[in-house]
Amino acid sequence: MISPATRSFAPPAVPIPVSAAVPVDPERSARRGAAVGDVVLDAGSFWGRRQQVNGEATLAHCLEWMERLGWLENFDRVARGEFTHERAGWQFSDSEIYKLLEAMSWELGRRRETPEEDAQLTATFEALVERVAAAQDDDGYLGTAFGHPGLPDRYSDLAMGHELYNMGHLLQAAVARVRTHGHDTLVAVARLAADHICDEFGEGRREGICGHPEIEVALAEFGRALGEDRYIDQARLFVERRGHGTLPVRPLLSAEYFQDDVPVREAEALRGHAVRALYLSAGAADIAVHDDDDELLDALRRQWDRTIERRTYVTGGMGSRHQDEGFGDDWELPADRAYCETCAGVGSVMFSWRMYLATGDIRYVDLIERTLFNVVATSPREDGRAFFYANPLHQREAGSEPTAGVNTRAEGGSRAPWFEVSCCPTNVARTLASLPAYVAAVEGDTVVLLQYAAGRISLGGFVLDIQSSYPDDGIVRITVVGAPDDEAGVRLRIPAWAADAIVSDPGSPSRAVQAGWADIRRQFTQGDEIVLDLRIRPRFTYSDRRVDAVRGTVAVERGPLVLCLESTDLDEGVPLEAVFVDTSVEPVASGDGATVGAMIADVDGPITGTLPYGTFRPSPSIAAVRDVALVPYHRWAERGPSSMRVFIPTADGLDTMADADTR
Amino acid sequence: MISPATRSFAPPAVPIPVSAAVPVDPERSARRGAAVGDVVLDAGSFWGRRQQVNGEATLAHCLEWMERLGWLENFDRVARGEFTHERAGWQFSDSEIYKLLEAMSWELGRRRETPEEDAQLTATFEALVERVAAAQDDDGYLGTAFGHPGLPDRYSDLAMGHELYNMGHLLQAAVARVRTHGHDTLVAVARLAADHICDEFGEGRREGICGHPEIEVALAEFGRALGEDRYIDQARLFVERRGHGTLPVRPLLSAEYFQDDVPVREAEALRGHAVRALYLSAGAADIAVHDDDDELLDALRRQWDRTIERRTYVTGGMGSRHQDEGFGDDWELPADRAYCETCAGVGSVMFSWRMYLATGDIRYVDLIERTLFNVVATSPREDGRAFFYANPLHQREAGSEPTAGVNTRAEGGSRAPWFEVSCCPTNVARTLASLPAYVAAVEGDTVVLLQYAAGRISLGGFVLDIQSSYPDDGIVRITVVGAPDDEAGVRLRIPAWAADAIVSDPGSPSRAVQAGWADIRRQFTQGDEIVLDLRIRPRFTYSDRRVDAVRGTVAVERGPLVLCLESTDLDEGVPLEAVFVDTSVEPVASGDGATVGAMIADVDGPITGTLPYGTFRPSPSIAAVRDVALVPYHRWAERGPSSMRVFIPTADGLDTMADADTR
Repeated sequence: MISPATRSFAPPAVPIPVSAAVPVDPERSARRGAAVGDVVLDAGSFWGRRQQVNGEATLAHCLEWMERLGWLENFDRVARGEFTHERAGWQFSDSEIYKLLEAMSWELGRRRETPEEDAQLTATFEALVERVAAAQDDDGYLGTAFGHPGLPDRYSDLAMGHELYNMGHLLQAAVARVRTHGHDTLVAVARLAADHICDEFGEGRREGICGHPEIEVALAEFGRALGEDRYIDQARLFVERRGHGTLPVRPLLSAEYFQDDVPVREAEALRGHAVRALYLSAGAADIAVHDDDDELLDALRRQWDRTIERRTYVTGGMGSRHQDEGFGDDWELPADRAYCETCAGVGSVMFSWRMYLATGDIRYVDLIERTLFNVVATSPREDGRAFFYANPLHQREAGSEPTAGVNTRAEGGSRAPWFEVSCCPTNVARTLASLPAYVAAVEGDTVVLLQYAAGRISLGGFVLDIQSSYPDDGIVRITVVGAPDDEAGVRLRIPAWAADAIVSDPGSPSRAVQAGWADIRRQFTQGDEIVLDLRIRPRFTYSDRRVDAVRGTVAVERGPLVLCLESTDLDEGVPLEAVFVDTSVEPVASGDGATVGAMIADVDGPITGTLPYGTFRPSPSIAAVRDVALVPYHRWAERGPSSMRVFIPTADGLDTMADADTR
Repeated sequence: MISPATRSFAPPAVPIPVSAAVPVDPERSARRGAAVGDVVLDAGSFWGRRQQVNGEATLAHCLEWMERLGWLENFDRVARGEFTHERAGWQFSDSEIYKLLEAMSWELGRRRETPEEDAQLTATFEALVERVAAAQDDDGYLGTAFGHPGLPDRYSDLAMGHELYNMGHLLQAAVARVRTHGHDTLVAVARLAADHICDEFGEGRREGICGHPEIEVALAEFGRALGEDRYIDQARLFVERRGHGTLPVRPLLSAEYFQDDVPVREAEALRGHAVRALYLSAGAADIAVHDDDDELLDALRRQWDRTIERRTYVTGGMGSRHQDEGFGDDWELPADRAYCETCAGVGSVMFSWRMYLATGDIRYVDLIERTLFNVVATSPREDGRAFFYANPLHQREAGSEPTAGVNTRAEGGSRAPWFEVSCCPTNVARTLASLPAYVAAVEGDTVVLLQYAAGRISLGGFVLDIQSSYPDDGIVRITVVGAPDDEAGVRLRIPAWAADAIVSDPGSPSRAVQAGWADIRRQFTQGDEIVLDLRIRPRFTYSDRRVDAVRGTVAVERGPLVLCLESTDLDEGVPLEAVFVDTSVEPVASGDGATVGAMIADVDGPITGTLPYGTFRPSPSIAAVRDVALVPYHRWAERGPSSMRVFIPTADGLDTMADADTR
C-alpha cells in the first residue's frame, strides 16, 4: 500500500555502529552487554546446542505454522485491499511475525562461517519483510486486524486491540536488524510506524495507551538504536500515562490486568498480567536510566525486590494464576497450577537485564540464570518444534500427546507444536538467538563473566576461551587468548547458590570465594588460565513457611538447575504422590540429575466416597524404602507424557504417626 | 407478542396436587421430601432467620438490581419489537429473572399467616410474569438475546448462547409455581416454551445441546410436575446427546468445560465447569430414576464418590479453579484460590438430593448439610443484600469494600451487592425459599429427619415439634404433637462427624448411636419426647496427605460448621501467617466458634529481594503463645474486610528447628 519511495528515508542523525549487536544499549550505563557476535558458544554446550536447534529448526517451524494458519497471508490481504471479517488468528498475530523477524535478525547477526545457510535465511527474511512492508499504510500505520475495509477502526479497542503491542514488536525486530545488519526495508518500515505512533499518541494528541505494554520498551530501544530522542520521549509518555485508569473498563478484566491501576512509580509489586507487568517494567527501566530518574529506578527496584521475595517460583517462573495469566498475591505460589508462562520468563530476563545494566547488582544476573535454565530452556522440546506455554511445578496427571493442530493455550503437561495464542515459540526463538548478549558484559576495563558456557568471548580487549561442561559440573576453565596491554579486570559471578566456590588464577593460590562478584585484576598475558570451581552438587531447598502451597516439602537443586521427580523414573504402579523424601540423607549427583533417599508409601486404595478430611492425622503406611532419581526440570516430559513434581513431601515423622482415618 | 388466547392451554393430563410443593418429585422413588409448607422453621433458628431475610430483603434486592440494569427491560423491548445491539446484560440475564420467579414461588408457598405481604409479593410476581409472557414468541420461543431484530439468530451460538439454559430456569420457576399455587400464566408460558424446545430439538430434529446444562434437569421436573412424558423424553435426549463433541469448538474453551467431552454414563469424575457438571448430574439422576436405569445411576454414584473423595473441599465447596470456574484434577484443592462458586454449592445440593431420594444413602445428606452451612449460608451477608460469588478457604489480603455499582465476578474477599455475572444471588434466594423441602422426608411409614432446625414438621401423619439451638449445640428435642394411629417410624440422621451421639426416647433408656441412620419404631403418642444429643464440640480436622495445598495444617470444625481464623480476631500487627496452631491442646467451644492454643511467630521483616527458598529449613522464632479465636466460616468478612484462613499451619516442630535462612 505504501510506495517504495516513501520507505527510503533519510539516514539517522547518528550513524549506527553495525558491530553494536546488543538487544539493550543504554548509553548512560556504566556497563554494556556483549554483542551477539562477541560470544561464540560451543555447539556441544548447554546453550550452544539450543541455539543451533533454534536456528536450524525453530525458526522454520514458526514460519511454517504462521504460513499455514494464514497469519502471514493477513499481510497480503491487507496489501491487496481485500479483507473481510474472517481474518485468521487473534488480533495480536502480527506480533508473531515480528518476533520471528527479530529472531532471524539475531540469528544472522551471531552466525559465523555458514554463508550458505545465511544466504538462505537472509532470502527468507527479506521475502517476509517485503510482505510486511506491503501492508503498511501511507501514514506508517501497520496492522492487519484494524483500520482496513471489513475490519474495525484503528485504535477502536485500545484495551484489547494490541495494535501498539504489535508495532512494538516490529520496532524490536528493527532494532535487531539495524544493529546486526544496518539499514534496510524493515528498519525503514519500523521508522515510519514509530513516526506514525508519535504523531498519533504524542503530547497533546490522543491520550491513549495500549492494553498490552510492549510499545514502551520497543520505542525506547528503537530511539536509542536510531539516535532519535523523539521515540524515547514517546516511550516515556506511554510509561507515565499508565496507572490512571484511562483504558476503558472491560467486563471481567481489571485495570490491574492492563497495568493501568497504579502509576509505575507508585506501585509496590508486580501484579496483574505477568507478561504485561514485566514488559512494562523493562520499558520503564529504560526510561529511568535514560532520564537519570532515581525515583523511577527505585520504584522498579522496590517492585523487583517484593516480587522476587514473594511472587516468584524457585524456577524463576512468574505468574501464579491461570486466570488472567496473572501474578498472585504475596506468598501465593502454588506448584500445581503455577502458570509461569514462558513469555513471562522472557519478560523477566528483559527486566532484570536492564536492572543489572543500570545497577551492577548481581541478584539480577542470578535471577536471569535461574530463569534461563528453568523457564526459557524448559519450554522448547529437544528438537525445537514443540513448546510449553505454561511451566507448572507439579503435574498430577500425565499430559496427553498434543494434537496435530493448534493447541489450547496452556494446559496439558505436553509440549505442543503451536497454540491458539502462540506467543511463546517466537519469544523463545528471539531469546535463544540473542542469548550471547547476556553471557558477558564490559564495565570500564573489566570484562564481566555473567553466565558460564563453553565457547569464546571477545570483549573489552580480551579474547577468552572458556572450557566447561557447566551446568553438569561447576568447573569453568578460562584461558586468556588475548588481553589488553594494560592492567585490566576479569570479574566472575559467583552465584548465590555456590556455597563453597574456589577460584585459582596464575597470580595467586587457590582461594575460596563467596557468592557475589569475584574480581581478578592485573596485567593478563596470553595463556593465563583462571579456573573457577563452583562445586556443583545437588542440594535440598526449603521454602519460606509463608508459601503455603508447598509446606512440608523439599525441592532439590543442582547448581542453577531445579530438579524434579518424574513418573517416568518410578516403578510401574507407584504414583507420584507415594514418594516422600528422606531429608536425613543428602542427595547424590547422578547423570545430569540426582538421586534421593525416599519412602514409598502405600497411598492408593479403592475410592470410598468419603471426604479427604478426618479427625486423625493421616499417615500412609510405608511400602518400601529406596532411592529415586530426579532429573532436570527443563527436560521433563521429554521422554513422553508424565506426571511430575518439583516440591516433594518430606518423610518427616511418617513412621511415628497414627494410621490414616478419613471420613 | 403472543396473544393471550394462545397462553390459555389445555390442563395437563394428570391434575396437579397443589399440596405437593416439593422441588424434586421422582414418583418412582421409595422416599419423598417434605413439601415447603410441611416444615415451618422458627424465625430464630439458623435457617429460619435466613429464610426471613431472604423473603424480606433478598427478593426485593434482586428485583431492584435487575430493573436498574435493564435486564427486565430486555423483555419489554422484545415485546415492543424494538431491539438493538445494545442489549443490557449477558446472554444469560433472562435466567436471573426466572430464578427470582422461582424463589418468589417457593416463598409464597412456604409462607403462613402473612396475607398482607403475600398479596404484595403475589402482585409483584404477577406483574413480572406479565412482562416475561409479553416477550414470548408465538411458537413458544422465549429469549431476549437472540432471535429478534438486531439480535443474532436463534440457536446460532449453542455453545455460549444460553438460550436453553435460560428457558430451563423458566421451567424450574414454573415447577415451583404449579406445585405451590397451580396453573397460571407462568406455567402456561413455560409449557409453550417446553413444547417449542421439543419441537425444535426432539428426536430427528436439530441435534443440538446447550453449552450450559440446565434444560435437562428442568425438563425432567417440569414433565413430572405436569405429567407429560414428552418433556422427560426430551430431557433424556439432551442427557444422552452430551459427551459426543457435538458443540462447536470455541477458542480457549474445552469440550470438558461444556460437559461435552465424555458421555454421562462413561465419565469417572465430575470435571470441567463445576456448575455445568452439577446441573447436568442432577438432570441425569432424574432420568436414571425415571427410567430405572441402574447403569446411569451407578455412573453418577461413581462420579459422586470420586468427586467427594478427591475434588471437594471441607466446606462442601466444589470447583478448585478460577480459570473456567472448573473442577481441578484429583487432590487439586488449594485453599487460597478455591473457587467454590456459590452456585456450585446450590448445584451440589441439587445433585446430592436426587441421589439421596434415589438411594437413601446418608452420605448424600451429610454432604448437603455441609454444603448448606458452609457454602450456601456463607454467600449472603447477614442483611441479605450482598453476596459472595466465590468461597475461597484462604484470603491472604483483606478485601476492599465492594463498589456501589456492579462488581466483577468473583474476586475480592468482600460480599458485593451485585455482579456482572450475577447468578449467585438468585440461586441463594431460590434455595433458601425452598429449604424446608430438604429438612425431612418420608419413607414408607417413617418420617426421616434430615436436617436439624427448630420448628414444626407435619409429615407422614406426624406432627413433630423440634426444639434446638442447632448448630450452636447438638441437643435436638423432638416432641410428638401428632402421630399416626399405627406403629410408625422416626428416623434420625446421625452425621458422620458425630462421634458419640446419644439418643433417648420414651420407650427405652438413653443409648449411644453411631453415625448413620438411627431408627425409632413404635406406636407414638402425643407428648412423646425424643432427645438427640449430637454432642457438638470443636474438633481438629486433618487433610489427606495427597491434598498438597494444605499439608502441615489443621482445620477446626464444630458440628456441621467449618471454622476459620479471621484477621479481625488477631491483635493489631499480627498477620494471619504468624499463627501456628498447637494441636496438643484440644480446641474449646467459645461463642459460636472456638478458641485454639497457638504460637505467634515473628514472620515479618524488611523485604530483602531474595527468593523465598533456601538450603535450611525455615523456622520463624516464636514471639508469643496464646489462644486465638475462630469463628464460623459462614460469617467471615461480616465484620468488615478481613484476611482469613480455614487451614492453619500446625506448630509441630517449630521450637526444635534451626533459624530461617532464605536466600
